[in-house]
Amino acid sequence: MEKKNRGVLAVVSGFSGAGKGTIMKELLAQYPDQYALSVSATTREPRPGETDGQEYFFVSDERFREMIAQEELLEYAGYVNHYYGTPKAYVMEQLDAGKDVILEIEIQGALKIRKKFPDTLLLFISAPDAKTLQERLSGRGTEDEGTVAKRLSRACEESEGIEAYDYFVVNDELGKCVAQVHGIIQNEHARVARNLEKIAQIRAELKAFERR
Amino acid sequence: MEKKNRGVLAVVSGFSGAGKGTIMKELLAQYPDQYALSVSATTREPRPGETDGQEYFFVSDERFREMIAQEELLEYAGYVNHYYGTPKAYVMEQLDAGKDVILEIEIQGALKIRKKFPDTLLLFISAPDAKTLQERLSGRGTEDEGTVAKRLSRACEESEGIEAYDYFVVNDELGKCVAQVHGIIQNEHARVARNLEKIAQIRAELKAFERR
Repeated sequence: MEKKNRGVLAVVSGFSGAGKGTIMKELLAQYPDQYALSVSATTREPRPGETDGQEYFFVSDERFREMIAQEELLEYAGYVNHYYGTPKAYVMEQLDAGKDVILEIEIQGALKIRKKFPDTLLLFISAPDAKTLQERLSGRGTEDEGTVAKRLSRACEESEGIEAYDYFVVNDELGKCVAQVHGIIQNEHARVARNLEKIAQIRAELKAFERR
Repeated sequence: MEKKNRGVLAVVSGFSGAGKGTIMKELLAQYPDQYALSVSATTREPRPGETDGQEYFFVSDERFREMIAQEELLEYAGYVNHYYGTPKAYVMEQLDAGKDVILEIEIQGALKIRKKFPDTLLLFISAPDAKTLQERLSGRGTEDEGTVAKRLSRACEESEGIEAYDYFVVNDELGKCVAQVHGIIQNEHARVARNLEKIAQIRAELKAFERR
């Protein structure tokens, strides 16, 4: 039986309002055996409805500092008094088992992970244009103008980092976008760099035939 | 209206008997508006059934030397008294028109083209294993043992160059393989490096909104 290839580590970032979350949910719903979504650890309190291990692993400040010290995190960052980080063990286990692991993190984290694992795939999801983006941000109807303005300002900052990514995926139509993200991650398995063993084996077999 | 992206230049190489030709034919049949297949120029005589401009552009030695001198070829090589080369003008026209151009050439030519155009995509098509390859080579039933042996020896040589390619595509099942080659070439359009203008535009629009 063929040895299962190691999974692809993919980071998905994108503007708030670009539909990232929905795309991730769809990918996991359509291909539950192919993908694993990494769950971040955080020191902030769970909000009503949030479950430990689902949205986040909720840990104490002390435990988080221990995770940093023990190198149990692939990357971490602090926002407004709280820490957020990506636990390493789960990601490594899933990759070893041949699952493609998706991390939904922002650019600073993406770059840290790529530095540690150069074959990480970086995808940036965008709305078709800034106007659509602004409409989607406002259109949720749950946020006031101040929040929308803050998100827009954050989107401006994030837009400075897009050039560091591998793929720029426009979410114009959800189904098409999900299929594209899936295709990009799956094609990564066909990269020559990921098939060196198989290539060496075919080469050896061909030479064995030739010598007969 | 959105400006049509420049086409992707893709080189497809692979072992004789790996099904390259069939894959190309299927791609063009299924997506006639998306792809253009480059036709090589050669100084060899047309064989019965071959039409000028179809399988090859059949040219004289003198005309071929002129094409070399005038830099009308993207790459060329000599085999057993004859020259083969890729006319540049057609490829450039089709890329400018937004078509993805596929060159079916061997590794030396592939590397020459990549040197001139670093964003050329290199795909190598293989049978699932050496045994299948040998069976396919013999199985055509039209070649004697000597020819099969010669092809096998050539396959051994070609196998040395696979690491220079981007993707290693296994042709296990034709339909699946065609879809994969299509996906790989199409996803190339979503590469960040191919969308710098679009990214700059979204960035500018976001900043304009923010300043309001």
